[in-house]
Amino acid sequence: MRARVLVTLRPGVLDPQGEAVRHALGTLGFAGIEAVRQGKLIEIDLARSDPAAAAAEVREMCEKLLANTVIETYSIEIA
Amino acid sequence: MRARVLVTLRPGVLDPQGEAVRHALGTLGFAGIEAVRQGKLIEIDLARSDPAAAAAEVREMCEKLLANTVIETYSIEIA
Repeated sequence: MRARVLVTLRPGVLDPQGEAVRHALGTLGFAGIEAVRQGKLIEIDLARSDPAAAAAEVREMCEKLLANTVIETYSIEIA
Repeated sequence: MRARVLVTLRPGVLDPQGEAVRHALGTLGFAGIEAVRQGKLIEIDLARSDPAAAAAEVREMCEKLLANTVIETYSIEIA
């Protein structure tokens, strides 16, 4: 069972990486880009086969390690 | 219109960040983790309102800047 965790900075937290990407895209000639935010994608292959239990376990991983919940939020997708 | 780009390392490319996360999760007591891969999430707000045109433009951004296609693959989701 595969879990996909998306970790993004909370709205209002400065995102210099995203800003750099936005600037670089503008330099390359792409117009009409309003905002770019950069985050992390973490794919986890789990031995568990129960989706609900897997989601609960991954949520615990996020709280303990994968996300800094002071400045980041996360979402979990189980496939 | 928001585009979500997920950039991941190609299978077979060494992923030390993912390995470090897997090891850390094991140290924290999480069992049954078979693999962890870490990638990038890039969210782009576009002025365009045509989904097909937006997807084509974002694909071009990926090829030119966002992904290193020698070692990375990407997927695009338009919302």
